[in-house]
Amino acid sequence: MEQIIIYIVGTAGSGKTYLTKALADWFDSKRLDYMTVNLDPGAEFVPYSADVDVREWFTLEDIMHKYNVGPNGAQIIGADLISTIYKDIKDEIELNGADYVIVDTPGQMELFTLRSSGEIIVNALGRDRSVMVYLFDPIVSKTPSGFLSLLFMASSAIFRLDIPQIQVLSKADVLTKEELERVLSWSKDPESLYESLSYEKKTLSLELFHMLKEFGFFRPLIPISAIDGFGMEDIYDGIQEIFYGGDDLEKLIY
Amino acid sequence: MEQIIIYIVGTAGSGKTYLTKALADWFDSKRLDYMTVNLDPGAEFVPYSADVDVREWFTLEDIMHKYNVGPNGAQIIGADLISTIYKDIKDEIELNGADYVIVDTPGQMELFTLRSSGEIIVNALGRDRSVMVYLFDPIVSKTPSGFLSLLFMASSAIFRLDIPQIQVLSKADVLTKEELERVLSWSKDPESLYESLSYEKKTLSLELFHMLKEFGFFRPLIPISAIDGFGMEDIYDGIQEIFYGGDDLEKLIY
Repeated sequence: MEQIIIYIVGTAGSGKTYLTKALADWFDSKRLDYMTVNLDPGAEFVPYSADVDVREWFTLEDIMHKYNVGPNGAQIIGADLISTIYKDIKDEIELNGADYVIVDTPGQMELFTLRSSGEIIVNALGRDRSVMVYLFDPIVSKTPSGFLSLLFMASSAIFRLDIPQIQVLSKADVLTKEELERVLSWSKDPESLYESLSYEKKTLSLELFHMLKEFGFFRPLIPISAIDGFGMEDIYDGIQEIFYGGDDLEKLIY
Repeated sequence: MEQIIIYIVGTAGSGKTYLTKALADWFDSKRLDYMTVNLDPGAEFVPYSADVDVREWFTLEDIMHKYNVGPNGAQIIGADLISTIYKDIKDEIELNGADYVIVDTPGQMELFTLRSSGEIIVNALGRDRSVMVYLFDPIVSKTPSGFLSLLFMASSAIFRLDIPQIQVLSKADVLTKEELERVLSWSKDPESLYESLSYEKKTLSLELFHMLKEFGFFRPLIPISAIDGFGMEDIYDGIQEIFYGGDDLEKLIY
């Protein structure tokens, strides 16, 4: 089979690193051939054993000392430095040759989606073989306006990276059953989100929501929990459907 | 007049801090009564004289030592700590009592728009008197997909903070005349963006673009340059129109 690259993308604190571990554990349990890549030079603790780790080349603390900058400057320099070692990362991935490459991206989503290194990495590793798993933070997702905000950020990442996206509701275990059902219903049915927003006195149009749904901006969220591995099989199935399901890829992207 | 709070919001490196300075200088030149607030605990150099500065309470470097965390952790803790001092910040702003309060927000946009401290600050200082100036990074804006990506991030910030937004094209001086005209035309006319995207083989619908325009997602970008102060008057006019223009505020928000 052709190698598939799975980018784990989401805002800071949405659970990217623990999803990477949970997905790796699931691939292990299914005896699937995979490897993990950590692209976050600021990672303090990585709970999985990273086969390729950007921290082999530099860490944010190194950058702070070397360039005499604070944490803000170090994060931007760190993100940009990734583009200087993309060939090395690519070589290490090719040497390993696993069927699935799970890529944990930098802490702040903007660093990967908006700075050019994200694009450079995706191009280098192969855009056609790439998919993004986008994490919705459960706390932000709980309110209708927070959910809509994350939905627009998810779409922003699609436009920028131009690869198919699987949307997951991270840390579903921290929500009550009722909260979980409400968030999932918003992701499936624009009318339910529209109605919930009306209670917050928002003045958006139902017509717009239907159109966003029609063009694939809304898609059913997959609830996951990295704690008990819940939802990993659904992510895997989503990946299979994108690459082997015979669906029109363009349709799935947008 | 009632005090107006102006939040400067944008992704890392989009020029928030220099816009804060340029806007302050312009207010100075017009003898308008203003004050500046720095909410970024990671700011390394602040070119304006901040009347209230979150770094009086803590800096990211303090947090790294005190909590024994790296730069990633410190940024999240720093953003969250802002919510613990919002009363002090509010008191200092009230004590000063300026007509216009220019608020420079943390480096990474996510830290302010997605974590709860942003919402807490906006509520504490007065949502009804608040406006956000959202900066489009010129380098990302240059490509049609980058522009669309930033447009969706801008909308994401509106849903989350629920205050009116003025969209500006930051550092317009780094673009060629041709690039500048193209970006501005995208912001005014969804069809031109749709056409430019078609060259990138995107499969979005013109109908969707028209609808996004109709609901105020597209709005004419104000080109600015913090270097020569270009565009500051347009921002000021935009603020006046929002608060005193008699337009329907809800319409301007969305």
